[in-house]
Amino acid sequence: MQRYKCIISYDGTGFFGYQVQPNKRTVQSVLESVLAKIHKGEPVKVSGSGRTDAGVHAKGQVIHFDSSLSIPEDKWGRALNSLLPEDISVLLVEKADDQFHARFCAVGKEYRYFLYLSSKRDPFQRNYALQYPYKLNLESMQEAAQLFLGTHDFSSFCSAKTEVEDKIRSIKSIDVDLDNEFITFRFIGNGFLYNMVRILVGTLLEVGAGDRKPSDIPRILDERDRRCAGKTAPAHGLYLWKVFY
Amino acid sequence: MQRYKCIISYDGTGFFGYQVQPNKRTVQSVLESVLAKIHKGEPVKVSGSGRTDAGVHAKGQVIHFDSSLSIPEDKWGRALNSLLPEDISVLLVEKADDQFHARFCAVGKEYRYFLYLSSKRDPFQRNYALQYPYKLNLESMQEAAQLFLGTHDFSSFCSAKTEVEDKIRSIKSIDVDLDNEFITFRFIGNGFLYNMVRILVGTLLEVGAGDRKPSDIPRILDERDRRCAGKTAPAHGLYLWKVFY
Repeated sequence: MQRYKCIISYDGTGFFGYQVQPNKRTVQSVLESVLAKIHKGEPVKVSGSGRTDAGVHAKGQVIHFDSSLSIPEDKWGRALNSLLPEDISVLLVEKADDQFHARFCAVGKEYRYFLYLSSKRDPFQRNYALQYPYKLNLESMQEAAQLFLGTHDFSSFCSAKTEVEDKIRSIKSIDVDLDNEFITFRFIGNGFLYNMVRILVGTLLEVGAGDRKPSDIPRILDERDRRCAGKTAPAHGLYLWKVFY
Repeated sequence: MQRYKCIISYDGTGFFGYQVQPNKRTVQSVLESVLAKIHKGEPVKVSGSGRTDAGVHAKGQVIHFDSSLSIPEDKWGRALNSLLPEDISVLLVEKADDQFHARFCAVGKEYRYFLYLSSKRDPFQRNYALQYPYKLNLESMQEAAQLFLGTHDFSSFCSAKTEVEDKIRSIKSIDVDLDNEFITFRFIGNGFLYNMVRILVGTLLEVGAGDRKPSDIPRILDERDRRCAGKTAPAHGLYLWKVFY
């Protein structure tokens, strides 16, 4: 058996998220059905670096799987892409050590969230950026973002459904940049809890709108209570950008 | 009755083109059904500047319709957008003279075609740009493009199904620009025949690939025979960008 590590990209619009769910089209189930086809019906388990929710996109999700087939490394990408649907693409396949695990070996992740600043709906952005028609104070969002840096208990910034016990995470950088009618939020950290990036964005938007102050952030962190933070920003503006090993 | 001129944008992916067809979702039929709703069931006829094929997008299609409702000009956009599906958007509504006609008053059009230069499939470009994995000679495409400028009989560059008799059109400008991994073709002319932009692009691609020379273009025009030109480029890279009046 040989372990393979793959970098994949997908348009989350047509998927019920990453993880297998009964009778739903998910990224994992589509990958596993294509791998089973390549392995003549033999089931192949795919492990991802983490889940993404329905509608969330990926530019650099990482997965691994094991195969007994002797397909050369450089042929795997073409084999997979020729069978995969057009909304998912394998960007890189490489041999990995048996010890490699897409989830447990990940040491960090980058997520990006895109905001489309416009009072007019754009049919081409509807699934790929959150349309935001009101004024935002960029400087106060940037100021608030810096207060999330470092190691904190992010209990206030994860879904009440979060199953993991340890809610302490470290955020290395958050950049909030304006480029024409788009604002891009870039988050790099050692890991993110369920819905964490979307709640961080939702809270930053409330700061940008003037409904909260940057100085409110330390108190919200201290409360360790989901109800104290802002709304969860919609899924379709979010991209799993890169996984670090 | 008051005539209204609208600028609309649509993602062509989910439409069987612009024009009404029985039992198909088309741009015109969606617009007419929303206008009928606003007019309490009374049918409202929508006239566009021209058809777009299935999969072809529009950033600035122009339509007109007549209404007996006394809705202020600035309220029409919101009324329409609140009922229209997300893949079509009204960008501007303004009162027009009774003599205005979206098709017959148009004096020119701009179309753009996007090429995504990559050997790797990108799920986010699959409906919005033609992926092109081979080498292209930009200079020879630019040289060939200039030979289409001016007034010509474009019989070689329209679908054999073209119904109009007069196949003489004037092209004012064609720009072929490279920006990172995208090539953009911009066409401005007084009018374009059925499939004309897609056949022009298909022919330019064959020049770029070295299968034809720029100096072949005058001969292809002279032949007045569709079989002499290149392949019809796929619909999903094409955008009706602007209509001039």
